[in-house]
Amino acid sequence: MSSFRLNTLVVVGVGLIGGSVALALKRAGAVARVIGVGRGNANIARARELNVIDEVAADLSAAAEEADMVLIAVPVRQNAHILGQLRDAVQRGVVVTDAGSTKQDFVAAAREMLGAGASGVVPGHPIAGAELTGVEAASAALFEGRRVVLTPLPESRAAAVDMVESMWRSCGAQVTRMTAERHDAVFSAVSHLPHVLAFTLVEMIASRTDAEELFSFAASGFRDFTRIAGSSAEMWRDICMANADALVADIEAFRKSLAEVTAQLHAGDGQALQRMFESARAAREAWLRKTP
Amino acid sequence: MSSFRLNTLVVVGVGLIGGSVALALKRAGAVARVIGVGRGNANIARARELNVIDEVAADLSAAAEEADMVLIAVPVRQNAHILGQLRDAVQRGVVVTDAGSTKQDFVAAAREMLGAGASGVVPGHPIAGAELTGVEAASAALFEGRRVVLTPLPESRAAAVDMVESMWRSCGAQVTRMTAERHDAVFSAVSHLPHVLAFTLVEMIASRTDAEELFSFAASGFRDFTRIAGSSAEMWRDICMANADALVADIEAFRKSLAEVTAQLHAGDGQALQRMFESARAAREAWLRKTP
Repeated sequence: MSSFRLNTLVVVGVGLIGGSVALALKRAGAVARVIGVGRGNANIARARELNVIDEVAADLSAAAEEADMVLIAVPVRQNAHILGQLRDAVQRGVVVTDAGSTKQDFVAAAREMLGAGASGVVPGHPIAGAELTGVEAASAALFEGRRVVLTPLPESRAAAVDMVESMWRSCGAQVTRMTAERHDAVFSAVSHLPHVLAFTLVEMIASRTDAEELFSFAASGFRDFTRIAGSSAEMWRDICMANADALVADIEAFRKSLAEVTAQLHAGDGQALQRMFESARAAREAWLRKTP
Repeated sequence: MSSFRLNTLVVVGVGLIGGSVALALKRAGAVARVIGVGRGNANIARARELNVIDEVAADLSAAAEEADMVLIAVPVRQNAHILGQLRDAVQRGVVVTDAGSTKQDFVAAAREMLGAGASGVVPGHPIAGAELTGVEAASAALFEGRRVVLTPLPESRAAAVDMVESMWRSCGAQVTRMTAERHDAVFSAVSHLPHVLAFTLVEMIASRTDAEELFSFAASGFRDFTRIAGSSAEMWRDICMANADALVADIEAFRKSLAEVTAQLHAGDGQALQRMFESARAAREAWLRKTP
């Protein structure tokens, strides 16, 4: 449906996200060859077995020599180390993108590790489920209709941004561009803060002496509310640390909103409480109506 | 399977809960006749049409004359008014129970409206989904394997408590007894606080000037986390007001826990953050393993 086509894509970290990009591009006929680079030897071998990737490479720098594009899809704390191995490749015009949940930290790492070579870097964030992990869960359809945010640097080459945008479109995604700062503020509010709230609630209950009895009466509402507290602790530590400034501001705003609820309860102000609940319920309904 | 059988059950408020009790008892052969009393005329007529109830009564006091048991399943704020119409019935030994989400307020209303007649009152709380409402959603299977908490008063007659427990067992539920104070503390932590957190988060985002953009990037994790903010604002106002003391204590404890997260983020203490996330994740997994 589009004439976009990569000759060689290198995927660093062939898990759910990296594997799904490879499968989606193959299905769309938008890539000729995918080289996988990964630290988990069993996982990368399985990715080859499943034909998610065409070749396995141990040496990222060497593999990147042959690439049009490198997709970094590893835990964000490894980004700097990986970017450091792409110095020669970006010099030669290879385009580098990523799939991390925070973007200012990736921008900073790209500038630190690559200097002027950061003009070949186009940070990205696909908004796709993280309930599953690993290449076994990868699917060519994972990004269909999903949103992907690109946060180009001011120095990112226009052609590089277009290439990364075309790549995600070939996967079926809807692409939006914004600054890394704006991205991190948006996702602090709608993703990072909710995760912190869910983890904090479960831990508050778990650390009480009557935890066992409390959990025994938790029902389906509690299960849904805390589902995101089933996510990887390591990954969420990294996200929270990487986006600490925006997240702290949102946590403090939330604490202030909770203090207002306490004040309304102390004052017996049922009307104010109902207004707030009703406004929230209506906003959520309106959001659900607009969400496919 | 049991010899428990009511001659006449009066259900006040034939919605999801009241209707499901009627259907479950009929299926179990545990009730001969169900009389429905309700304010919504269309709803009560529909309940009769669907054979959820056998008769419709406009006058609760008169209907209660013929009952062994009266089940009150209306918005909790109407409880006192309804209990006031049961003065004669409890004098004659009719057993009264309810299905409200808070219990100390029901105990107080029973004592205020019925005096010594409160010995015929056995407060109850079935832990069953509130996503659906109305008699159309009623099901004989709603309480199968679900928990019901009874909070007998010290003055509740032992025979009355046993009768209400048998009634719920006939519906397929598992019955636990505890004090009303303990009940309200437990559900403040595992239900009322999570609802407040979900409503507060949605309202905090909805009231920002960039709300539309924020919502446009909210994904499935946000949808699950805020599902309980789709609940009735009126019902949750009543629950929060009725259980204000326990809820305020839990809100303040939660604010304190959040302040610790802020401190860890300020200090860059990723280890402490990861420990908390991991402890929460593990506690939630352990809970899910134990939950049928």
